[in-house]
Amino acid sequence: MEKLIHLITEPVLVVDLGKVKRNLSRMVDKCSLSGTLLRPHMKTHQSKLIGELIRSFGVKHITVSSVKMAEYFAGQWEDITIAFPFNVLQINRINNILERQPLLLLVDALSTLLALQNQLNQTVGIWIDIDTGYGRTGIKPSDVKLIDQLIIQINASEKTYFKGFYCHAGDTYHAESPSDVIRIFERSLFQLMELKRKYSKEDFIPEVNYGDTPSCSLSESFQGLDSVSPGNFIFYDLTQQKLGSCKEEDIAVSMACPIISINKERMQVIVYGGGVHFSKDRLPGEFGKLVTWKKDHWVSSESENKLMSVSQEHGIIKADQSLLESVAIGDILFILPVHSCMTAACMKGYMDTSGNFVDHMEGFTRN
Amino acid sequence: MEKLIHLITEPVLVVDLGKVKRNLSRMVDKCSLSGTLLRPHMKTHQSKLIGELIRSFGVKHITVSSVKMAEYFAGQWEDITIAFPFNVLQINRINNILERQPLLLLVDALSTLLALQNQLNQTVGIWIDIDTGYGRTGIKPSDVKLIDQLIIQINASEKTYFKGFYCHAGDTYHAESPSDVIRIFERSLFQLMELKRKYSKEDFIPEVNYGDTPSCSLSESFQGLDSVSPGNFIFYDLTQQKLGSCKEEDIAVSMACPIISINKERMQVIVYGGGVHFSKDRLPGEFGKLVTWKKDHWVSSESENKLMSVSQEHGIIKADQSLLESVAIGDILFILPVHSCMTAACMKGYMDTSGNFVDHMEGFTRN
Repeated sequence: MEKLIHLITEPVLVVDLGKVKRNLSRMVDKCSLSGTLLRPHMKTHQSKLIGELIRSFGVKHITVSSVKMAEYFAGQWEDITIAFPFNVLQINRINNILERQPLLLLVDALSTLLALQNQLNQTVGIWIDIDTGYGRTGIKPSDVKLIDQLIIQINASEKTYFKGFYCHAGDTYHAESPSDVIRIFERSLFQLMELKRKYSKEDFIPEVNYGDTPSCSLSESFQGLDSVSPGNFIFYDLTQQKLGSCKEEDIAVSMACPIISINKERMQVIVYGGGVHFSKDRLPGEFGKLVTWKKDHWVSSESENKLMSVSQEHGIIKADQSLLESVAIGDILFILPVHSCMTAACMKGYMDTSGNFVDHMEGFTRN
Repeated sequence: MEKLIHLITEPVLVVDLGKVKRNLSRMVDKCSLSGTLLRPHMKTHQSKLIGELIRSFGVKHITVSSVKMAEYFAGQWEDITIAFPFNVLQINRINNILERQPLLLLVDALSTLLALQNQLNQTVGIWIDIDTGYGRTGIKPSDVKLIDQLIIQINASEKTYFKGFYCHAGDTYHAESPSDVIRIFERSLFQLMELKRKYSKEDFIPEVNYGDTPSCSLSESFQGLDSVSPGNFIFYDLTQQKLGSCKEEDIAVSMACPIISINKERMQVIVYGGGVHFSKDRLPGEFGKLVTWKKDHWVSSESENKLMSVSQEHGIIKADQSLLESVAIGDILFILPVHSCMTAACMKGYMDTSGNFVDHMEGFTRN
């Protein structure tokens, strides 16, 4: 064993597939309890291998954040939701995907819907993007006039059918506490249930999809929701741990970084691993946290050594005496990331804990 | 003409090669005045095409920030400095590059130097990494004992020769004003000149290399420096503009982003263009600034519309009334980045203002 550590000569994002399976298993079980469909968001891992692992849990519907990601995963799913307001300039690529893969698209404007209907070659399902308070994209539930208009127009063309309401309550990422997350979740759920009730008819009940990792991890039940589409829960990260969505031991990716310099006077260890590897996402005073590698997996460190700053290729770790005394230039340190989605996108690929390659879309496609 | 705008269906990083040439020309001229060699840092653009453009100005020595980048540019330069403390785990790749390209490496520890000498197949030049106050890597000029040890050991092996002192005074990025940048530059220069004097012998004078874009842009002369290695000046960005290193019109890259949603109530325009495109680097309250596209180039906007936040794929622009009234979903907006090095690394490629493809290393290599 101990294969991995000998393969590392530069920053490598290591994924513990055992942790991925446990994180997935918990979410699948929670969905089963309330009869809610899991439409996991692939934007965090962007990996076909992890996609296969997700399929092995019986998942048949997925969510992505770009047309490119839909292309990468197309061909193997009952449907793929592109959870991003439809970008009218990408209609040709949408038509190409539809030849091999049913799609569900998000719409929050009439002009977008009309452009779509004018140019689609095949039928797609439409989610109306609802904003329950996040304030990014989507229509407020109170904007009944626009929702009415959209539903009438969706039903007016054979190229589109009404699927239901999609909501990403990203405001949970600004929550102060787990109970604050739950409060946001319940407020969103209430609005979505009202919409569902209002637009249900004898022959048609719109579905409601909801998804963000803090809500889906912290809420005890998905009762009332037709589907959920969390993404980050596959890996989690220090941001989710801080929000209370996971424990440190649930975090399924860590960056292996060679030590390139040690400054005992400043009590710093400088690693090869910077902004182009971790991204520049941060928590207050922290770009990552050290864990300890034990033979074939990592475990929580006894002390709190943090990645305190990053430049393009370098990372600086504020090191305690024990770390300073136990490491040398050329050793490998393992660091949990602040935001696993962004870190994975920067790294464009993974190794599992046995040293096997795991794909990431960005390693295989050009923009 | 107007070719570019019709090619854009998703975020595209557009490079104005005319501005690149002007930025380069100014730096080349300033170097000529003081007889200083320009060793431009390629980490910002990471592009062979832009590398060729740099060669056309007579530049023969370059600087890179990783072994991978040295591999990408190898074979065409008198020497390449890898401006990163030598990572002992990458010795095999260093030996491979040396078969086709002379290298200069950075060292700030004796153990690193010994590991290098033990495993090198060919001779390399060694820069001693000097820290004049930035506090990342490098040796303090006052640590005479370590500098003495290193020089003796460099000269003790045929595998290495002493090139001189390398300094990246990245503390200029935290400067409060242009005069603050100059103060840091002069303080660093004084320390480096002292080192040069101290270690000069009858038969050998160590070279001094210095490089950061704020210092190199704002200082009037490079008198005393053997070489400079700024990188960002090729493109500049909003951070450099804020520091006073450049004017807005010097910024040579802008991101073309399709509009996907408009919220008149909140006075926001939502574009396709988020953290995976711009990176998460920011200035206070700002991830980018709008410019205006005119036929075949961009010009400064009359009003101050800022990219105020980014999530993974979305960007939100705080829009004034005039912008809100003049745009529609599907239009393309052009946005200057906060940190062009990080944005280019995220995008992995460019289009020039005529719509021609321009390479970036990350589009062609895997980690």
